Amino acid sequence: MTITRPTLLLDEGTARGNIERMAAKAREWGVRFRPHFKTHQSIEVARWFRECGTEAITVSSPEMARGFADGGWRDITVALPVNLRRLDELDALAGEVRLGLLADHREVIEALGRRLTSPADLWIEIDPGYGRTGIGWDQPEEVLAAARTAGDCRMLRLRGLLTHAGQTYQCSSPDEVRTVWRQAAGRLGALRDQLAGAGFDVELSAGDTPGCSLAERPEGVDEIRPGNFVFYDLMQFNLGACRAGDIALTAACPVIGIYPERRRIAIHGGTVHLGREPLPATPGRVYYGLALPPDDVPDDRFSGAAMLNSLTQEHGMLEAGERLLERVRPGDLLRVFPTHSCITAALHSTYRTAGGGMIPRLSSAGHGRAGR
Amino acid sequence: MTITRPTLLLDEGTARGNIERMAAKAREWGVRFRPHFKTHQSIEVARWFRECGTEAITVSSPEMARGFADGGWRDITVALPVNLRRLDELDALAGEVRLGLLADHREVIEALGRRLTSPADLWIEIDPGYGRTGIGWDQPEEVLAAARTAGDCRMLRLRGLLTHAGQTYQCSSPDEVRTVWRQAAGRLGALRDQLAGAGFDVELSAGDTPGCSLAERPEGVDEIRPGNFVFYDLMQFNLGACRAGDIALTAACPVIGIYPERRRIAIHGGTVHLGREPLPATPGRVYYGLALPPDDVPDDRFSGAAMLNSLTQEHGMLEAGERLLERVRPGDLLRVFPTHSCITAALHSTYRTAGGGMIPRLSSAGHGRAGR
Repeated sequence: MTITRPTLLLDEGTARGNIERMAAKAREWGVRFRPHFKTHQSIEVARWFRECGTEAITVSSPEMARGFADGGWRDITVALPVNLRRLDELDALAGEVRLGLLADHREVIEALGRRLTSPADLWIEIDPGYGRTGIGWDQPEEVLAAARTAGDCRMLRLRGLLTHAGQTYQCSSPDEVRTVWRQAAGRLGALRDQLAGAGFDVELSAGDTPGCSLAERPEGVDEIRPGNFVFYDLMQFNLGACRAGDIALTAACPVIGIYPERRRIAIHGGTVHLGREPLPATPGRVYYGLALPPDDVPDDRFSGAAMLNSLTQEHGMLEAGERLLERVRPGDLLRVFPTHSCITAALHSTYRTAGGGMIPRLSSAGHGRAGR
Repeated sequence: MTITRPTLLLDEGTARGNIERMAAKAREWGVRFRPHFKTHQSIEVARWFRECGTEAITVSSPEMARGFADGGWRDITVALPVNLRRLDELDALAGEVRLGLLADHREVIEALGRRLTSPADLWIEIDPGYGRTGIGWDQPEEVLAAARTAGDCRMLRLRGLLTHAGQTYQCSSPDEVRTVWRQAAGRLGALRDQLAGAGFDVELSAGDTPGCSLAERPEGVDEIRPGNFVFYDLMQFNLGACRAGDIALTAACPVIGIYPERRRIAIHGGTVHLGREPLPATPGRVYYGLALPPDDVPDDRFSGAAMLNSLTQEHGMLEAGERLLERVRPGDLLRVFPTHSCITAALHSTYRTAGGGMIPRLSSAGHGRAGR
């Protein structure tokens, strides 16, 4: 079928290659591979992981956990601090699968202790210096208190310490990523030693795609949870975490305007189709994607690509070079390489493969489309 | 029903008030009111417009046009340059409703002339200095050539010149908005005079929410097409286009983390629920929303609101003052005022009203969820 509107294109071979390499790395490191499925949110793509031996997974909302539990997955960590408004859903899941939950607040752990009727694993989330969720790595007494609270709850098995060193996304070189990763592993290791001294034997879970792609074997870590690597994107490419040819997800968008005098091309492909995830262009300017004609294979500098540097709800505006302006006609397609594939993917309900087949995403995956 | 996840809250009374005021202004100005329905994308909200006398509407994709045509609307302009890959859909619509199409390229107009089997109105899009789509206002010969091409097409009725002065969104004061608006109206007027000299009698269509909210009666304009005003948002509030009390759409998000030592609160409400539309905070920093407890009514400085200044896929991180940090517990809800309501709304499939009722959005509205 002809592509008529903004459409996600998924290169199965590239994605399978990305999965195989990361699974092989986890084996080589001797750590459990618990990939984050928030990126693809698809039962079919999940099957490609299964074929590489994956059994344990990560998701970031109860509805994603439900979707993959219904799809036959039996070991699921919900890597978002527990939302106390959804204890009933979580309790139901705990009755069906080995469920891992995250908490960083004693009140939440106590509520889990009171309300769960099926056993669940508890991971205490640690903020390794990223500044998002988690007990600060420099608050060891809080960590110990959380462990003791969990220890008092009959239905909770204290499984370990979990961290997301998201600050790797702000790094400017692979070396810097490695430094952040070593530092995070060190911080987690110190907390584990402290817990061991108090009689708690816990695992360490870590994992962000830049770190897992670029770092050496992480000292003391028991499992890794990267997600984005299945598709990669320009953010990872800029970090050096992947090559251009590893990017498995792009968005085909129809050309709806050509403006040689302004060196601009308009595509039907706006914020609602691509997301607005900025990467720095020249100082003070950002861009949201790079576009090439559908059959052009990007070289490792994306030569000749047009820069998507302006987005409104339905329109995308590309800054294009002369050669592309000469080649393109209204109604042509351009292929947009996303800056952040997780977000672009979350705006669509299906992936189109090279053969024209459609791979659905979970119908009510945690993408904010409440009520579906 | 209890709110358990990120949920859009729609204040019907406020939205109806916004609709009534804008409809009254169009009557006072003596211009056609053709509101843009891309903001709400809902048959029910559309009915509130109908009750204020609205008959003509604007949408920004063929699927939205289809949705509202099926919902009984009979005069629809698709305000996105024609996508040549969707001529069959557009032709079918032209057979059912009075359809307005946009073009800014002669090749597209010629293709419409060849392919349409039912008559449609053609609007030539003019770029009034915004830099998005449209023939440049300073390219009068191109405009005349486009008009002549349209004149040669049997199924096209040249209806007029259409413009979106989106540069009003970059203004820093109501006076600046008024200046941009006067300038745009002047530029369109000059082109109309030129076309009149060549025997083409055309209408002028303009309309962006800041201009329609703040400007005086636009000289020579025949219809206005604002959209965002139905909900308004923080961007409009900062421009002075609305008061805090006019913002009809917010997102209820559960609190999943509280970090007094970092003055942060975490909510389940990330990029996939709220969108990442930045507004400037302090120099060099941006924010994506302001949050208050559900029953707090914002004053006209949003005193006490927490600033949403960091987003990842599912997490939102708020910078909170001491008073809010003391009041909030895990599992509470916070109400996030969006920076750009059109985008936040597009990430959800339903609106929840104060009474707990659910208002659906079009099921396959042009929000990039291809295949639905």
